[in-house]
Amino acid sequence: MKSLILIAHGSRRERSNEEIRDLTESLRAEARDRFDSVSCAFLELAQPSIPDAIELETGKGARKIVLVPYFLSEGDHVAHDIPSLIDSKRRHHPNVELVLTPHLGAAPGMRDLLLSLVGIEPKK
Amino acid sequence: MKSLILIAHGSRRERSNEEIRDLTESLRAEARDRFDSVSCAFLELAQPSIPDAIELETGKGARKIVLVPYFLSEGDHVAHDIPSLIDSKRRHHPNVELVLTPHLGAAPGMRDLLLSLVGIEPKK
Repeated sequence: MKSLILIAHGSRRERSNEEIRDLTESLRAEARDRFDSVSCAFLELAQPSIPDAIELETGKGARKIVLVPYFLSEGDHVAHDIPSLIDSKRRHHPNVELVLTPHLGAAPGMRDLLLSLVGIEPKK
Repeated sequence: MKSLILIAHGSRRERSNEEIRDLTESLRAEARDRFDSVSCAFLELAQPSIPDAIELETGKGARKIVLVPYFLSEGDHVAHDIPSLIDSKRRHHPNVELVLTPHLGAAPGMRDLLLSLVGIEPKK
């Protein structure tokens, strides 16, 4: 079983956390051929936490979990806090493959997504 | 003359601000057919500020300025702080068209950009 977890910062504004849950639903619809489970987790201020979300997936039988940080810049959260939480879970679950992808801000398509906001179709 | 300004939050980490400046350079290369000037501005913690960036563009002769918030969620910064700064500049420059686009997190292509991080090509 293969799981995808979208990692967001979490906010005091419940509506921001709901935006993440909505985005997760839309990812689920598109990723279902490749992932048996698609969920989200929050670094702080909202639930589930990253460790709880990983436990939930391993409890459901996940053998590979791909984690995607929904963060724009490579600050301490992306560079240290998230990898450290995941390393700790790796030690608890040596038979589960935990894969951390680059953070959103590093996605090669970011420039084109911004251009789409001003109506520019990128040259292919 | 038409200008594009990418609005970021700004960070105490100078490297995060540099990431924004690098992204702005890459936007400039792709948007030059449509915008005479492409620059960035920061809500706080880095320079130039949003008002300063708008002043710089109007001083160069901009008659239309498109502003793109590089923010993931529609918190107070996106909903109130940025529009309020721009409204104030509209009053100072009634002959300059200031257009605020939706924030990055609201871009319809966000789901596909996230899927690209896990190697999924979206169905067209």
